[in-house]
Amino acid sequence: MRVGFVGLGRMGAAIAGRVADAGFDLTVWNRTPGRTGDLLDRGAQEAGVLGEVCPGRDVAITMVADDDALREVALGPDGIAQTLGPGGVHVAMGTHGVTAIAQVADAHAQAGQSLVAAPVLGRPDVAASGGLGIVAAGPAAAVERVRPLLDAIGRHTFEAGERPESATAIKLANNFVLGCAIEALAEAFALGRRYDVDPAILYEVLTEGLFSAPAFKVYGQIIVDEDYDRVGFTTSLALKDIELTMAAASAAAVPLPSGSALRDRLLAAIAQGDGERDWAVLGREQARASGLEQPTSSKA
Amino acid sequence: MRVGFVGLGRMGAAIAGRVADAGFDLTVWNRTPGRTGDLLDRGAQEAGVLGEVCPGRDVAITMVADDDALREVALGPDGIAQTLGPGGVHVAMGTHGVTAIAQVADAHAQAGQSLVAAPVLGRPDVAASGGLGIVAAGPAAAVERVRPLLDAIGRHTFEAGERPESATAIKLANNFVLGCAIEALAEAFALGRRYDVDPAILYEVLTEGLFSAPAFKVYGQIIVDEDYDRVGFTTSLALKDIELTMAAASAAAVPLPSGSALRDRLLAAIAQGDGERDWAVLGREQARASGLEQPTSSKA
Amino acid sequence: MRVGFVGLGRMGAAIAGRVADAGFDLTVWNRTPGRTGDLLDRGAQEAGVLGEVCPGRDVAITMVADDDALREVALGPDGIAQTLGPGGVHVAMGTHGVTAIAQVADAHAQAGQSLVAAPVLGRPDVAASGGLGIVAAGPAAAVERVRPLLDAIGRHTFEAGERPESATAIKLANNFVLGCAIEALAEAFALGRRYDVDPAILYEVLTEGLFSAPAFKVYGQIIVDEDYDRVGFTTSLALKDIELTMAAASAAAVPLPSGSALRDRLLAAIAQGDGERDWAVLGREQARASGLEQPTSSKA
Amino acid sequence: MRVGFVGLGRMGAAIAGRVADAGFDLTVWNRTPGRTGDLLDRGAQEAGVLGEVCPGRDVAITMVADDDALREVALGPDGIAQTLGPGGVHVAMGTHGVTAIAQVADAHAQAGQSLVAAPVLGRPDVAASGGLGIVAAGPAAAVERVRPLLDAIGRHTFEAGERPESATAIKLANNFVLGCAIEALAEAFALGRRYDVDPAILYEVLTEGLFSAPAFKVYGQIIVDEDYDRVGFTTSLALKDIELTMAAASAAAVPLPSGSALRDRLLAAIAQGDGERDWAVLGREQARASGLEQPTSSKA
Repeated sequence: MRVGFVGLGRMGAAIAGRVADAGFDLTVWNRTPGRTGDLLDRGAQEAGVLGEVCPGRDVAITMVADDDALREVALGPDGIAQTLGPGGVHVAMGTHGVTAIAQVADAHAQAGQSLVAAPVLGRPDVAASGGLGIVAAGPAAAVERVRPLLDAIGRHTFEAGERPESATAIKLANNFVLGCAIEALAEAFALGRRYDVDPAILYEVLTEGLFSAPAFKVYGQIIVDEDYDRVGFTTSLALKDIELTMAAASAAAVPLPSGSALRDRLLAAIAQGDGERDWAVLGREQARASGLEQPTSSKA
Repeated sequence: MRVGFVGLGRMGAAIAGRVADAGFDLTVWNRTPGRTGDLLDRGAQEAGVLGEVCPGRDVAITMVADDDALREVALGPDGIAQTLGPGGVHVAMGTHGVTAIAQVADAHAQAGQSLVAAPVLGRPDVAASGGLGIVAAGPAAAVERVRPLLDAIGRHTFEAGERPESATAIKLANNFVLGCAIEALAEAFALGRRYDVDPAILYEVLTEGLFSAPAFKVYGQIIVDEDYDRVGFTTSLALKDIELTMAAASAAAVPLPSGSALRDRLLAAIAQGDGERDWAVLGREQARASGLEQPTSSKA
Repeated sequence: MRVGFVGLGRMGAAIAGRVADAGFDLTVWNRTPGRTGDLLDRGAQEAGVLGEVCPGRDVAITMVADDDALREVALGPDGIAQTLGPGGVHVAMGTHGVTAIAQVADAHAQAGQSLVAAPVLGRPDVAASGGLGIVAAGPAAAVERVRPLLDAIGRHTFEAGERPESATAIKLANNFVLGCAIEALAEAFALGRRYDVDPAILYEVLTEGLFSAPAFKVYGQIIVDEDYDRVGFTTSLALKDIELTMAAASAAAVPLPSGSALRDRLLAAIAQGDGERDWAVLGREQARASGLEQPTSSKA
Repeated sequence: MRVGFVGLGRMGAAIAGRVADAGFDLTVWNRTPGRTGDLLDRGAQEAGVLGEVCPGRDVAITMVADDDALREVALGPDGIAQTLGPGGVHVAMGTHGVTAIAQVADAHAQAGQSLVAAPVLGRPDVAASGGLGIVAAGPAAAVERVRPLLDAIGRHTFEAGERPESATAIKLANNFVLGCAIEALAEAFALGRRYDVDPAILYEVLTEGLFSAPAFKVYGQIIVDEDYDRVGFTTSLALKDIELTMAAASAAAVPLPSGSALRDRLLAAIAQGDGERDWAVLGREQARASGLEQPTSSKA
């Protein structure tokens, strides 16, 4: 299988490395040059321009930052829909909105190609060691065809049906539940502080019992330590994610009241200058709203 | 140690059984008679009236349904504060509000006694086999004194400091985070359904990864199965619990926006006639609000 | 008609003055003595103790601060239910919760008496000049009987049916809509500030058009002027009111999402030390949450 | 002054009529042809294509449906920025988002032109009789220059400063406060119904007092009459408006909790099939959530 790969950020580079190591014939490209790292040593070739990535390839993989970037590389001049050729499969592995995914799927269908939405679960370091979860949805034959590729990339592929937006919705839902968990933790710790609760004890009660899961252990610990500058995922990126979720919900007429509460707190945190801190900083924002803490900044 | 025990509901009876089996000298009482089960065979004596439970006892344990019941058995005529004697310790193991706990603690302090708030984590069947978690807070000497008793009852005691309300706040916070988790799940599953997501796949993605914890496995499964008549904890009781949390938050000037979203959905579920179903029925209520489901009842 | 009057705060005293001036035989009482002002000169007598207010009277009017006070004067020893005599009517003019009103109505019914809930619309200075609106509900015969009294007190009586809680609900709903209006204004002004909108222009647009009403003119002006120390109604009292509304809604299974948003902001304002400022200070709290303003205090 | 006018929907046609009647040299155009009504009789000329509207004109007025339409007529090939000529002023009178307005303003600035954002307050019938309020913001010289035109169109122009987004924000804020008012009314009426309150009485209390303003009289009456098919503004359009507001708030890091509550109820109403009813149908949606009413549809 011949593979074109677009998007060599940290996650993209890690995934492309898995593809190269598995022996696939791989051509990579990134808008900003100089991001191939050791990929060429591991067997990949580099395309000079976007238009050279897909001709003659069976599969195009994209891991790009947002919907605008996806539309550009998929639908633009010299984009994937134009250059991949009939029968090709585009595997979109970024976190995108349902509207963009549907739009790109339509364009590929018109070009006799298929879109498989295949967002991933896990961070770049996990990706490099093959530990990613992958949620894949798209036409059954297309998913079947790229399965060897997905198997080479991650530890497990969750098959989410024939409609690419289904995979998108699952990925968004997963991040949504995580955001709601962090916000609930933030509120719980603020309530505790007002009643002289040692945060470490509350953490222990929660994570030894009903909430003995990574979401609560990782983010609860950051809140306990108030260690918001150890950034896994920024508040600003989290807001972007949640906005995608709210947009998907809005398009489908699904009210998400917990999501609204989460979004409002993310905005307040950003308004206080915490946009580039880890989104567990909701713990601090909730403390502020409870009169337990000073803001770090005034007029933003 | 001589122990008086008030409140033989399912949870109270299970705990009293642990106390009896551990060989403590135990007198039990329940407002509604005929609830001693096999406790007398296991060595307990039964008091005929409330006023006979505490005289001559070192410790009184209560496991009663709500704050009114607690005030009555602790502060009323022939109540614990009046009959336990100086130096006695009242261990309140029910889920109560911070105001009631503070009020009862004051009354005991004035009578030369101590209150240890010691709410439990777990269900009655877990209690019977000694698997409860216990969150205990109160004067250090009092906690120290009742430690053998708590050790006999549960698997682990989380020590939450000298202020009884701290234990209360932890217990309320734990249930609060659980409620928020269920509501977030409910919203996530509704969003998924609108995008043709198989609920079982979403469940798998969530519970294999960030949310591999009992809260998500138990309640996620009920939502997937729409098995709301398998009742662990009713929506009406959940509302009662959350109202205690909101009241504690209000008294301490802590806004809880996720709690507000949760409370509003619980009310809507109750308005639809689902008050006696398991509170995972938030999944159905969220589906209704998303136009995915008919209500089960009209004018309540 | 012989009238007993309990509760001589600012509003009570103003109403009692209207009753005295209209020539009714009036006995007044207040828990804290020395509040009769010029009422005795205007023809009222003062009772020495609560138990002397109602014997031999046709009607008892109460204007007391909260539900606890109402229960005490109505249901306590020497209270109105005990001393008013069969056929008597208790007109409760304070702002109370639906549960307390129902409880007091029951007690009066058992004593062969009637409760008319008759909360008022307007402030004490308006009351003194007879400008109050009154919302009255209770058994038709009882309302009919006290009509001359209500006519003497206010400018208009809105008849709200036979169930006293109906009047309570209307009064609470009125304050609820006001609170929501203030919160919406607070949010709108914060949004405007971020886009360099002159608050005075936004005020003008709103109050010249769709919102040309006292609620928006009065509270909008306070927000424009940031004149939160000119206190009409404190944030803490507003919270108390909204808690009554939320409790009424909870008892009736009515979710109030706007009310939840309002309540959360009131709590945040109180957490920042603004509890004794006018509740238009929601404008400042919203500005804080938007990063436009420093808090006035830290740890409360 | 020579004027080009783009967008002849109901509102656009009414405004163009005012411009024609005031004697300005007017060329009109609408994407869908056949919408000139009697404008040609009143002195206007019709352009055959967009590119013919602006050449040689001093001012271009747009009244188009949404941001996409605005971008197309302003920024597209043959669009206003390209054809109006240096020194020209574009008066954008539709309700747009802050991002689109900023983008269009930039394009005009680069072409040596000015954008005046001038959204209107009022409905088409009000527009026809010259009763519109206009909120205008943009470079002072440009606003000054188009003042005679604005005077001919509306009853009053609120000047909102030099930044076009300020006018946008005011218009969005006005609609936002209206939406919040309707939602608050919806909640209040549902609460009342649960306590047997006659909606007409609650309406009277509200609109005779603190809320004696068009927003409450118009929408309160629709809720009282449950006359949701008398459509002034549809729920779907209201959602579109509120999404613009939420996006403006998000871009400026302003949390809008009342707006979130409103948005969630609009979505729920749309999910129930009420998207094309008047947005006062929030009254019905709130009744549904309170168990007072059946949904009108199931799976959407």
